[in-house]
Amino acid sequence: MSGIKIALDVFGGDQAPDVNIDGAISILKEGKFDVELFLVGKEETIREMLGERGFHHEKLHIVDAPEVFGMAEKPSNVLRRKDTSLYRTAQLVKEGKVDAMVSAGNTGAVLAVALFVVGRIKGIERGAIATPIPSKRGFTVLLDCGANIEVRPEHLRDFGKMGYHYARILGKESPKVGLLNVGEEEEKGNKDTRAAFELLKEALGGDFYGNVEGRDILYGNVDVVVTDGFKGNVAMKAIEGAAKFIGDVLKAQIKASGFSGLLGGLLLRNAFKRLKKTLDPSEYGGAFVLGVKGVVTKAHGNSNALAIKNAIKVAYEGVKGGLVKKLQSEFGGD
Amino acid sequence: MSGIKIALDVFGGDQAPDVNIDGAISILKEGKFDVELFLVGKEETIREMLGERGFHHEKLHIVDAPEVFGMAEKPSNVLRRKDTSLYRTAQLVKEGKVDAMVSAGNTGAVLAVALFVVGRIKGIERGAIATPIPSKRGFTVLLDCGANIEVRPEHLRDFGKMGYHYARILGKESPKVGLLNVGEEEEKGNKDTRAAFELLKEALGGDFYGNVEGRDILYGNVDVVVTDGFKGNVAMKAIEGAAKFIGDVLKAQIKASGFSGLLGGLLLRNAFKRLKKTLDPSEYGGAFVLGVKGVVTKAHGNSNALAIKNAIKVAYEGVKGGLVKKLQSEFGGD
Repeated sequence: MSGIKIALDVFGGDQAPDVNIDGAISILKEGKFDVELFLVGKEETIREMLGERGFHHEKLHIVDAPEVFGMAEKPSNVLRRKDTSLYRTAQLVKEGKVDAMVSAGNTGAVLAVALFVVGRIKGIERGAIATPIPSKRGFTVLLDCGANIEVRPEHLRDFGKMGYHYARILGKESPKVGLLNVGEEEEKGNKDTRAAFELLKEALGGDFYGNVEGRDILYGNVDVVVTDGFKGNVAMKAIEGAAKFIGDVLKAQIKASGFSGLLGGLLLRNAFKRLKKTLDPSEYGGAFVLGVKGVVTKAHGNSNALAIKNAIKVAYEGVKGGLVKKLQSEFGGD
Repeated sequence: MSGIKIALDVFGGDQAPDVNIDGAISILKEGKFDVELFLVGKEETIREMLGERGFHHEKLHIVDAPEVFGMAEKPSNVLRRKDTSLYRTAQLVKEGKVDAMVSAGNTGAVLAVALFVVGRIKGIERGAIATPIPSKRGFTVLLDCGANIEVRPEHLRDFGKMGYHYARILGKESPKVGLLNVGEEEEKGNKDTRAAFELLKEALGGDFYGNVEGRDILYGNVDVVVTDGFKGNVAMKAIEGAAKFIGDVLKAQIKASGFSGLLGGLLLRNAFKRLKKTLDPSEYGGAFVLGVKGVVTKAHGNSNALAIKNAIKVAYEGVKGGLVKKLQSEFGGD
């Protein structure tokens, strides 16, 4: 096939539009991925910005969208605001004009256009936000990270199946899936987790590892951790807070060491930089909305150009790996 | 009053009995706290260990308990095993022979003896495990950390009131209490969190901060974070896993720096040690079971002597600060 077509919501994200433009340019300049990019947003602004950067490429197109959907707007409003760059980006997926979309915009609104513009795969009742989190195993996929505050055991089973395929796309050959619980023993948790345990065992067989605990997200023996969107959101943000706090403590120590200009201080500073890089979600290219009829990648709201570039890469991998088709055949729908 | 009487479950914890004996000796040697300690466990063993250490003190007593409750036993079994050191420790509280108890034993079993031997305060339907977690604000109290997998909004309100008083005992003058949610806005979450929000506002007035997110446990503007025992457990363990993972990354960097013997390597090593100390729960002396008619302190299962010593200190502060009486008058019970 010719290049994989990916639409980018240029006006989504805290640092839009610059980081989106730069991320797009960077992946085309790199030239390693056979992508064709559609920059969606205020045409004139995009044209100007490309001009300023002196960048033109036959695989770079502009799709006009005069409005911007705000990072703090009520997510469901996006469905009425059809002239926003976010809505139009999703519409390109819906109409089959592109294979995938990337947005660093308002998470709830990206979820809304994924579910209601792109549309759910038949047989999947609930879409889920799946986030790869840096871990001992390279990364671990956590889902759901906030699409569903409350779920039934069948939904957790579906998340397990979707997470499995997503982890494969991201490069895990034979992913192990765990169910987030308060202990490892089979009888732990409540009625719902026990029912989900049985359903996951039935659906995944030997790829289901069993119950895991919060510490196993970063430090465990599974590649995918399944939970509801409330606990997933709490866990993800608790880890984020921990990393930030630890970063601050280290920074204070570099300062207090009194050697900040010397070899020791430099080493500390470098160790800290590498630590940040290891923990940086930008390196992993953002989350997927799983369960919809298209590859929808949600980059972190605070993405820089590198994060956008990596999000485009994982969208590319998602299309190349046939994620949507795999889920359609897995769930028997279309 | 004469010394505050505290019973110590000498055979509780992964490193029992040594760390318990050494923790007890250490606080008496330090002599800063007016405590009278009751070492509960196999009398002969305890006597021998004290002999080996050449330590005798008029404020150190032994209470015989011939059996040990295992770290991996089914918690509820403890209620039938009345000759275990854990059960007899709780019985001393129940009988008013001591003011407080400390155990590093099986968490579920400590909870069971707290609720069913020591007994709940009238007017409090659910006890809760409250854990001080190192944070940007020195520490933040998270509760419930695992006593109740499911709760009603009224329970979350009660946790807020109990957490407030506990944080004061630990030294926060005017603690701010937050409700763990998926976003800060008042309407976030589900029916239960919205109901709990209203109840907490009513009960705590200006001391209720509102909704907080997972990242606020370590990096926020509240001193107490209230949630159910499932999410509390997940958050606490997710943070634990993050700290461990980050520690490993740093260790690897020290090694890779190639300067491990030089000034730079030493600085890295020291920074790492200080980081570990900052994050070490031993420094904060363990969790309380709140809502029962006695001060019940649960030290981490993996406690060392320092952690036991600090757990005895916070038990002392709990008694001195009149925590139980405060909760009794707050909840109108006895």
